Amino acid sequence: MSRLDSYIRRMQAQKLCLDQAARMIGRRPGPVLELGFGNGRTYDHLREHFPGRAIYVFDRQLNPHPDCIPPADLVRLGDFRETLPRFLDEAPEPAVLIHADIGTGDKIASLRLARDLTPTLVHLLAPGGLLTGDQPMNDAELEALPLPEGVQPDRYHLYRRKA
Amino acid sequence: MSRLDSYIRRMQAQKLCLDQAARMIGRRPGPVLELGFGNGRTYDHLREHFPGRAIYVFDRQLNPHPDCIPPADLVRLGDFRETLPRFLDEAPEPAVLIHADIGTGDKIASLRLARDLTPTLVHLLAPGGLLTGDQPMNDAELEALPLPEGVQPDRYHLYRRKA
Ligand SMILES: C[S@@+](CC[C@H](N)C(=O)[O-])C[C@H]1O[C@@H](n2cnc3c(N)ncnc32)[C@H](O)[C@@H]1O
Ligand code: NI
Ligand code: NI
Repeated sequence: MSRLDSYIRRMQAQKLCLDQAARMIGRRPGPVLELGFGNGRTYDHLREHFPGRAIYVFDRQLNPHPDCIPPADLVRLGDFRETLPRFLDEAPEPAVLIHADIGTGDKIASLRLARDLTPTLVHLLAPGGLLTGDQPMNDAELEALPLPEGVQPDRYHLYRRKA
Repeated sequence: MSRLDSYIRRMQAQKLCLDQAARMIGRRPGPVLELGFGNGRTYDHLREHFPGRAIYVFDRQLNPHPDCIPPADLVRLGDFRETLPRFLDEAPEPAVLIHADIGTGDKIASLRLARDLTPTLVHLLAPGGLLTGDQPMNDAELEALPLPEGVQPDRYHLYRRKA
């Protein structure tokens, strides 16, 4: 499998997990958190599948595609390790979905970052809210859900906050 | 269709066209030219599907993934408008395949670039050699081929140099 094949599979896994999350959440109200803006592609996908919801964006920097500029009041710039606890202090409405596409080339650093953020992410979620992303994010308060068909177990992850 | 959906379709179109080209070329000897290195994902795909062949890489700069560094003697850095005619002057072995993934955000500039390069690309191809890429590249010496199943007509292009 080439890097092209691998990248296609990864993006299909993202798409399948986000679409599954949208189906599971349905009309239940609440905001969505997007961790890792990158090119804004998954942000655009979230806008389409979660119309009418506040989608908060977290990243060190934003280089948005012109069609894809998030409203300034929903952006939290800076390192996740600072912006997420700070956001929790804003006492925001509990999130129905957190999408954490946070990996960099450094696999170990990516795993460590996800592990360190997970408790804060759990507390940002509504009971029954969903957490999906490219890293494992295990927690006693999270239940790992079956992945959509076609997604390999190590490629993307999906959890629900226990009610 | 979101930008994520669109990007998945585009990369699937690339993969399908490159795999089709590999089937059509088979064991026929000759080099491959890769125009536009980007992340090196399609370059890696070409290495896998065209093992044992020289794959020349053309781009303004290379930021290769560590697993994916082309041999220095097969790299031609600079603007395609200069490096390709210069390469023709090297009187290289005619290419069995040219992959031209050269589009930028500027649609008109991308179309113009492809149109301007096409005569040089034709002359770099062996008779019966294939040209595939993200822009239309029409020429009297090229025959447009049917696209693989699943590729939309405006998304990727495939031609054969007339024998
Ligand atoms: C894989 S990309 C996200 C791609 C995005 N989902 C898309 O569809 O284009 C990861 C992003 O996370 C950001 N990031 C990684 N670690 C971070 C950290 N500790 N704090 C803030 N942002 C971080 C990077 O800047 C990058 O934009
Ligand atoms: Ni807790
Ligand atoms: Ni001619």
